[in-house]
Amino acid sequence: MPLAVALDLGGTQIRAALVDAKGIMLNRIATVTQATAGPIVVIQQLVDAALEVSRDSNPADIIGIGVSSPGPLDTEQGIAIGLPTIKDFDHVPLRALLQVKLSHKVHLENDGIAAAIGEWKFGAGQGLRSLVYITVSTGIGGGVIVDGHVMHGRKGMAGHIGHMAIMPNGLRCNCGNVGCWEAYAAGPAFTARANAKSAADVFAAAKQGDAAAQKHVDDEVDFLALGITSLLHLYSPEMVIIGGGLSNAFDQLHPGIESYITQNAMPAFRDVPVVKAALSGNSGLIGAAALVFQNT
Amino acid sequence: MPLAVALDLGGTQIRAALVDAKGIMLNRIATVTQATAGPIVVIQQLVDAALEVSRDSNPADIIGIGVSSPGPLDTEQGIAIGLPTIKDFDHVPLRALLQVKLSHKVHLENDGIAAAIGEWKFGAGQGLRSLVYITVSTGIGGGVIVDGHVMHGRKGMAGHIGHMAIMPNGLRCNCGNVGCWEAYAAGPAFTARANAKSAADVFAAAKQGDAAAQKHVDDEVDFLALGITSLLHLYSPEMVIIGGGLSNAFDQLHPGIESYITQNAMPAFRDVPVVKAALSGNSGLIGAAALVFQNT
Repeated sequence: MPLAVALDLGGTQIRAALVDAKGIMLNRIATVTQATAGPIVVIQQLVDAALEVSRDSNPADIIGIGVSSPGPLDTEQGIAIGLPTIKDFDHVPLRALLQVKLSHKVHLENDGIAAAIGEWKFGAGQGLRSLVYITVSTGIGGGVIVDGHVMHGRKGMAGHIGHMAIMPNGLRCNCGNVGCWEAYAAGPAFTARANAKSAADVFAAAKQGDAAAQKHVDDEVDFLALGITSLLHLYSPEMVIIGGGLSNAFDQLHPGIESYITQNAMPAFRDVPVVKAALSGNSGLIGAAALVFQNT
Repeated sequence: MPLAVALDLGGTQIRAALVDAKGIMLNRIATVTQATAGPIVVIQQLVDAALEVSRDSNPADIIGIGVSSPGPLDTEQGIAIGLPTIKDFDHVPLRALLQVKLSHKVHLENDGIAAAIGEWKFGAGQGLRSLVYITVSTGIGGGVIVDGHVMHGRKGMAGHIGHMAIMPNGLRCNCGNVGCWEAYAAGPAFTARANAKSAADVFAAAKQGDAAAQKHVDDEVDFLALGITSLLHLYSPEMVIIGGGLSNAFDQLHPGIESYITQNAMPAFRDVPVVKAALSGNSGLIGAAALVFQNT
């Protein structure tokens, strides 16, 4: 049975799994990213994780390695240009280094795009030709499938949807741009507006009838929906799929998002469904495996 | 010699040309669109224009008809969903009607996408795999080429870049959405801020040292550059091409746009050139012909 090793490099966790051609994870491990230890240590963590998940399988079954990594990456060259959450990851030839250490072909993809591929091949977007995947957590990332192709663009950097400006002279974003959608609609902005410890606290309070918390949820809905409406017009997807930490409260966000779209999107775009990611936290990991199995 | 008949339906003018496989217009006519006379009259105008430009050529040379039309169109179905500038164009089966009357295969494309194809195949973007074309005139439209494909999306409606929101609770746009880029950066918004009769007047005054006019040009630069920076992050093109009426003042806009991008775009996106359209007012017409010659 052909198997893929999937690696998901995150700022807080490295996750690895052995995945079959149907997108089923046969095992899965997670370890804390040594984010301040430099690229040599982190790459060794990835190698160790890949070896660990594949240890009990027939080496001949493993047909390749898929890696999801935060961007910006130059996926044409296989280079991590600069990972904001991991120290000293500045123009690291991640694909080549892993390929040498693991003796397998390595497929490298931006984490937002990998998650979009995961949802497209094995999750909420199966069978569609065009979709937008949005992850809303500490930042906003995403990936776009259009006309049956994964949208890559120059250097594979398309789909940095969190860095679409929604406010002239707005808040300075971590990326250096001003007024980015991420600076208003990602988790930290939401919890800061609510002066709360976590997004979950605000959603829980709103659910229990706290009017102030509900107001913050409503504001978050408006920021999210404004960006999603733009994405409808920009990419004309058949579906918008929401993942990331804030999608845990999808039921509290969804009615307001739909209402905003119905009021504001151009009429021909209003009937596009906005749904929750089906693979929960594993969209990127399963998408990394899909890179191995499919010519995406 | 194989030839295409190109038709460009605009709110004020219908233009037609006979175009060869190198994108050269052998002739070109323009007529005033009878925009209030209803679809039957306007479609007859298109038919008459097609017949007129092809009258002196060998009928066997004409291999098809390309049509550029304002959107939103459903180009999968060949239907004009609703053209804001032309009366009663509500779900008109434009492609089928023209095909019957002209006895040739008709290729229908959104005007922004047609112009993008024109610039890609025969203009400033020749040989590239990814580009964004932006037309800035009474509205903002555009088209996107990505990874060597024309981006279409659901119903062929991708690339409505003018309707990306840049201001929460902002100005109401003609499209119904709030805060659209078009509502701030298209020609009418610029001339309204300057309280001027035409964009050309403001640019001319700025050129002559009028400080107030220059301030309005600077504001326009900021609005344009904010949107262009977002488009870099969203589509990762290799080039941004600016057409439409305001591109006549490209030299006055370009330095400020480059400066904004250098300050605000994510570093990996800063070196993408922003250039003026090469086919001036004919990007859409020549792009319509390209639809006939190429499987885009």
